[in-house]
Amino acid sequence: MSRHFPPAISRLISALGKLPGIGRKGSQRLAYYILGQDDEFARELSAAISNARDQIHLCPICCDLTETDPCEICSSTQRDRTRICVVESPRDIASLERIQEYNGLYHVLHGAISPMQDIGPEQIKLKELLIRLQESDQITEVILATNPTVEGEATALYIARLLKGTGIKTTRLAHGIPMGSDLEYADEVTLMRAFIGRQDI
Amino acid sequence: MSRHFPPAISRLISALGKLPGIGRKGSQRLAYYILGQDDEFARELSAAISNARDQIHLCPICCDLTETDPCEICSSTQRDRTRICVVESPRDIASLERIQEYNGLYHVLHGAISPMQDIGPEQIKLKELLIRLQESDQITEVILATNPTVEGEATALYIARLLKGTGIKTTRLAHGIPMGSDLEYADEVTLMRAFIGRQDI
Repeated sequence: MSRHFPPAISRLISALGKLPGIGRKGSQRLAYYILGQDDEFARELSAAISNARDQIHLCPICCDLTETDPCEICSSTQRDRTRICVVESPRDIASLERIQEYNGLYHVLHGAISPMQDIGPEQIKLKELLIRLQESDQITEVILATNPTVEGEATALYIARLLKGTGIKTTRLAHGIPMGSDLEYADEVTLMRAFIGRQDI
Repeated sequence: MSRHFPPAISRLISALGKLPGIGRKGSQRLAYYILGQDDEFARELSAAISNARDQIHLCPICCDLTETDPCEICSSTQRDRTRICVVESPRDIASLERIQEYNGLYHVLHGAISPMQDIGPEQIKLKELLIRLQESDQITEVILATNPTVEGEATALYIARLLKGTGIKTTRLAHGIPMGSDLEYADEVTLMRAFIGRQDI
């Protein structure tokens, strides 16, 4: 007597359920929402997914997701070509661009070194970065903007060590207490980092 | 200097952002997640959406979403054809089927009467229900399982009034304190309903 969804709905629910942060209830809700809209809605969503997947690929230079070859930033003449900011994922570029503080180039590692998850330096786009640095004599600074996690820190240290003696300056984003937050709620590691990194005012 | 996503990514983000409960950050996260998976993932998701939309339509009898004509429940010989349970949305059928308590038929209104949102009796599948009741002489009970909201209550009352004098018994799902919850946390309306609906034990 228990109800089986029509097969096409089941497939939709299960496909939606594979997206991150969307559980069983959530994927049912989304599936019924999509079916409740007009045809155009589903057509647009379906096309947007397949088009994006077909048209987007990695930039051969910085490994960011792009539709052009090379990507907009790598091919821009407005950018400062002496600095490369190294990030873990393409989304980090969007965040950094939003602050409008940095006008250099990027490099996307597509992950971070994580022995626990069996991800070594070969599994991320590190070789591509090193080749890039070797082939260019313009780069004077590499900004390591990997995440402030165990993996991100390890990756930053690893890259910093590789670049030692090359004459390229390596920097790391500052760690500290986030703006607008409260000392009381800062975790110990953040507080420690904030202390160590204290600056003259 | 602010970053524009590649157009195909922008379109994907905006299409995903139209889904309920998925905000700007969420749709960016989903878009990048989809682009980070293999081709198969995006193809499957895209096809599941367009196939579901193509294959699923409303059952001509009960207005549930279905792939067959009429739907599985309406065409089943195992179901009790003397009772119709009236719900607001197809998802409610899934919930009710899960409790394995009811073996009758269903009718999906696709909404509830809501003067505030300009939804009158003509905007929901109420006419279809009335025709169904007129054409069948088997129906002895209509169970009003619309939501316990202002709109759901109004819709249930409206239908109950229409069916008065037809000889068809109309019932409403019981309201009260949900199982496993605490009296202390029950809202006043729920508590009042539980009191009014109290039963001998």
